[in-house]
Amino acid sequence: MKHNYLNNVPLDEAKTILFNHLQASGFSGKTETVKVTDACGRVIKNAAYAVICSPHYNASAMDGVAVKSEKTFGASEKTPVTLDVADYTVVDTGDPIPDGCDAVIMVEDLIDAGDDKFNIISAVYPWQNVRQVGEDICMGDMIAPSGTVLTPSLCGALLAGGITEIEVVKKPLAGIIPTGDEIVAPTSNPGKGDIIEFNSTVFKGMLDSFGAEAKVYPITPDKKELIKSAVEKALAECDIVLISAGSSAGRDDYTSEIISSLGTVLVHGIAIKPGKPAVLGEARGKPIIGIPGYPVSAIVIMDEIVGDVVSMYYGKERAKGETVKATLSKKIVSSLKYTEYVRVSLGRIGEKLSASPLARGAGVITSFTKADGVLLVPQDCEGIEAGEEVAIRLNRPLCEIENTLIITGSHDPLIDEVSDFLAKKGAPFRVCSTHVGSMGAIYAVRDGLAHMGGIHLLDAETGEYNKSYIEKYIPSGNALAVRGVGRVQGLMVKKGNPLGIKEFADIKNARYVNRQRGAGTRILCDYLLDKNGISADEINGYNNEEFTHTAVAALIAAGNADAGLGIYSAAKMYDLDFIPICNETYEFLIDKKYLENPMVKAFLEVLYSDEFKTRLNEMGGYTEG
Amino acid sequence: MKHNYLNNVPLDEAKTILFNHLQASGFSGKTETVKVTDACGRVIKNAAYAVICSPHYNASAMDGVAVKSEKTFGASEKTPVTLDVADYTVVDTGDPIPDGCDAVIMVEDLIDAGDDKFNIISAVYPWQNVRQVGEDICMGDMIAPSGTVLTPSLCGALLAGGITEIEVVKKPLAGIIPTGDEIVAPTSNPGKGDIIEFNSTVFKGMLDSFGAEAKVYPITPDKKELIKSAVEKALAECDIVLISAGSSAGRDDYTSEIISSLGTVLVHGIAIKPGKPAVLGEARGKPIIGIPGYPVSAIVIMDEIVGDVVSMYYGKERAKGETVKATLSKKIVSSLKYTEYVRVSLGRIGEKLSASPLARGAGVITSFTKADGVLLVPQDCEGIEAGEEVAIRLNRPLCEIENTLIITGSHDPLIDEVSDFLAKKGAPFRVCSTHVGSMGAIYAVRDGLAHMGGIHLLDAETGEYNKSYIEKYIPSGNALAVRGVGRVQGLMVKKGNPLGIKEFADIKNARYVNRQRGAGTRILCDYLLDKNGISADEINGYNNEEFTHTAVAALIAAGNADAGLGIYSAAKMYDLDFIPICNETYEFLIDKKYLENPMVKAFLEVLYSDEFKTRLNEMGGYTEG
Repeated sequence: MKHNYLNNVPLDEAKTILFNHLQASGFSGKTETVKVTDACGRVIKNAAYAVICSPHYNASAMDGVAVKSEKTFGASEKTPVTLDVADYTVVDTGDPIPDGCDAVIMVEDLIDAGDDKFNIISAVYPWQNVRQVGEDICMGDMIAPSGTVLTPSLCGALLAGGITEIEVVKKPLAGIIPTGDEIVAPTSNPGKGDIIEFNSTVFKGMLDSFGAEAKVYPITPDKKELIKSAVEKALAECDIVLISAGSSAGRDDYTSEIISSLGTVLVHGIAIKPGKPAVLGEARGKPIIGIPGYPVSAIVIMDEIVGDVVSMYYGKERAKGETVKATLSKKIVSSLKYTEYVRVSLGRIGEKLSASPLARGAGVITSFTKADGVLLVPQDCEGIEAGEEVAIRLNRPLCEIENTLIITGSHDPLIDEVSDFLAKKGAPFRVCSTHVGSMGAIYAVRDGLAHMGGIHLLDAETGEYNKSYIEKYIPSGNALAVRGVGRVQGLMVKKGNPLGIKEFADIKNARYVNRQRGAGTRILCDYLLDKNGISADEINGYNNEEFTHTAVAALIAAGNADAGLGIYSAAKMYDLDFIPICNETYEFLIDKKYLENPMVKAFLEVLYSDEFKTRLNEMGGYTEG
Repeated sequence: MKHNYLNNVPLDEAKTILFNHLQASGFSGKTETVKVTDACGRVIKNAAYAVICSPHYNASAMDGVAVKSEKTFGASEKTPVTLDVADYTVVDTGDPIPDGCDAVIMVEDLIDAGDDKFNIISAVYPWQNVRQVGEDICMGDMIAPSGTVLTPSLCGALLAGGITEIEVVKKPLAGIIPTGDEIVAPTSNPGKGDIIEFNSTVFKGMLDSFGAEAKVYPITPDKKELIKSAVEKALAECDIVLISAGSSAGRDDYTSEIISSLGTVLVHGIAIKPGKPAVLGEARGKPIIGIPGYPVSAIVIMDEIVGDVVSMYYGKERAKGETVKATLSKKIVSSLKYTEYVRVSLGRIGEKLSASPLARGAGVITSFTKADGVLLVPQDCEGIEAGEEVAIRLNRPLCEIENTLIITGSHDPLIDEVSDFLAKKGAPFRVCSTHVGSMGAIYAVRDGLAHMGGIHLLDAETGEYNKSYIEKYIPSGNALAVRGVGRVQGLMVKKGNPLGIKEFADIKNARYVNRQRGAGTRILCDYLLDKNGISADEINGYNNEEFTHTAVAALIAAGNADAGLGIYSAAKMYDLDFIPICNETYEFLIDKKYLENPMVKAFLEVLYSDEFKTRLNEMGGYTEG
């Protein structure tokens, strides 16, 4: 088996190598001329100067009559001035001021004196109620410097300044070549081993946000010559070429070799995690980037490298994006070998903005969909302690993040369902829920990291749920549990129950899949083991831990395990058999000071509604809490 | 002359009336089904649930060999385990784990033992180096609740979860009908009285940012029947109808009447300034909004009303946008009759974020192009004092605002030119320059409201520029003036000098246009008047004040005035005759603590460059400072 090793070039160095080389190769934006009426969002090549003034004539600022101001001098209540027909011209707002006139009297200030005459009782000064030439824009004034992104109002100002067409930077076209024998177009029914090609869709969306257009080429199998000819085609048609997957150093990774044959490989292997196995190259003056196949690694390289490449095309330094300071909620250990790109969720609970690291696996796209921001842990840093202040690059506006109900604790699909009900009602906030188990809820609420969290903690001694745990871990009495739901917990087993499992003790003869430490369901498992006099060592798979009921169900359905504890709705979803074990009390632990929080109240209102009861019945396994 | 009066409905009340009525009329979003590969940026109608797990099979997380983990138990340096050909299957990353296997050994950990055998010296545990079914997404999990805007990574997650098509809210189509006899399509050569129609372009850009599409109808003259039939056509074709101009109560303002004849006028006249003469109505279940013709009023109504209408169509509350706290730099006086919508520029100088109100005229589109944010002064508020903390709704990201070199002071086109040179070099910051005259520069730099500002202040007693003013007004010595340019000041007069003006004293016989109080050029004017023994009263137009050299030049070119003081480059731009009066020293006043600021340094570097000297020569009238 062939196996090569990658380099490990520090991120900044890799960028410098690439950008210096591209600059020397003359990589920069082409331009095109567009109508200003269609130019919103475009980047102008050169400074734009007004070619006419705005207004370009002296215009009435009011509905009224235009006069020579001298004629009105001395007018007062005692000495009104009468305007004859010859003294005035009726004007509407925007009308030109006739020659010889230099002011406008508002219609409201005219007193009808019959025979088309008017009296006035106050004078107007020269140019009063007139928008003089150039009031807004003067011919020759620079409306916007080179490289400006045209906003709607800037387009308006350009048109007002007499500019009808403008030279803008042509959007760069990025060609995306998905590669891999196992890659298939999006489908709901992939065969075993088929990998759904979704990276090109992610890239297309990201490129759009960078200001680039995307052309997605057909999926190309892992055949060197086929990939090479796809790259040649893309080089001929596009400004930037992205080869998706095949950028590492494995058997079928041809990206580096192909770029070498067409141009220059500048970097192969960047000291960033995820994202290491990237290739940065150039051919025919155009960048060719080999992007790792794992979606998270791919997104990191798109964000860190390709975004900067597009900015370079526009002749700009990449805008860094909004950054906020937040308190790290959990320790991060990081390798000295890499810059780490840690996705975090952010939560404003009270005054404090907390950053919680999300899953760090390179394959977990949902760590991006949930991420509110990114924490870059520098290469020379071994880790960051909980409680330290860190800088987070935001993925969504801070106001949206701050407008979020944070639910951290035990997993139950009902939380997502309530969120959806709220969304359908147009609730002006988001719900962010994290599954860290019932004990996680207690710590999160106690430490001010969540508004609320689901808990179902069985006290083995009293047989009661939750109460004793709250008293023990939150002795201040600052939090209380409010009514949630009753749920049936049981053993999930394959449809038809092939191992004939009848009660909890039967898991001794099965491959078990467990929940993570701190989960209420894990505590239930331990309680049941103890009650049945079984030790954890006797259970095959006791250390096989999952974080949600659905994850346990999915593994049983897939045959990775034979049995696991979970709630009925998960078993139903996966068409598994279900052996009920107990009814439990699933409640929401809430910091008392958030009982009146409008987001918390709205959540509970939905949860307790009749409409939602119908939904719980459909899901199955719930009783009134 | 017909004259009706508008109502003055408070903004919130106007919105409530409109939205309650639209809700009752069943106004809400239609939907359409799109491919997920094309769905980025779209809003999903219903919650999206994964239809398959991701991964949907147990996949190798590494390049290596798949094995049954039991086979490896006990392997150590002393007791290596040998894998026969039958014991393993070669797998690449992403390959399915063959039946019977439950772990992968990385290629790096295999020791070649010949005959296709391998030795290993450490065991793998069950499911090690395997991405188990559902590791990322479990079938049945909610990927996103109703109403979610699809990000690139969410589109990836949907595809990974087996969703290939999705129901999204169809973008609403807003029909824009520009009206007015005097309105003409964009042109560089408008006739006198022609008003360039640019509001529809501004609206189109704003609608795009709201998530709506725009259809711009032909310009319709002020004929009631023509406008009515345009509105009927738009009502048939669009979801929202916007009638541009004609929404007030003047002679040719038909919007209200037309809406009445087709449906219901809900509000005519909103207590907001600018923006008062708006009409809110409904016909055939669709909103019809009459938008004022003045661009700033129009933008306010688009932002405050139409943006909310689009959000309502999507079934959402409008996102409020980012808000920051800033210190007001200048007192605002406001009317108790209106909510005022004040455009501000923002500047971070040192620690303090300052908000400076921009021009408040309804016709000044450039007050929007320059605005970093908006301050809403409530209807019941008479004004806000300088130094008070205010909440500003941001128009651009705070990081961009903070990355801005703020130059406040005397107007010279060279400042824009330097900004353009910086932009062309890809400088990672913006320049924001405000023209408040030389004295304005002294106050702004002294009070920490600007990094630097242009000054040219003649001391009548010493004949020296700037020094004595700085010593007097900034006695702390915290600021100093650095070299700028020498410039020729003189009298600008119409081409051919029809009044035969030869020297400054001749302005007694002309209509003069002056600069604002505090401008260096105004001080020069006063000095020259004094020197010539002329009193201000003798000057026709002494109180006719403009803020820039080009504005003065524009008025002379237009014939509104005969003469004005200004710099040569402005006269040249407007093809005016120029009677030189003096050479002056134009310097930049800088707070000493910003002398090493990289933005300030970059600015001066360009200013002093040979390349820029060439540009100054083209502009004319400059000498080395």
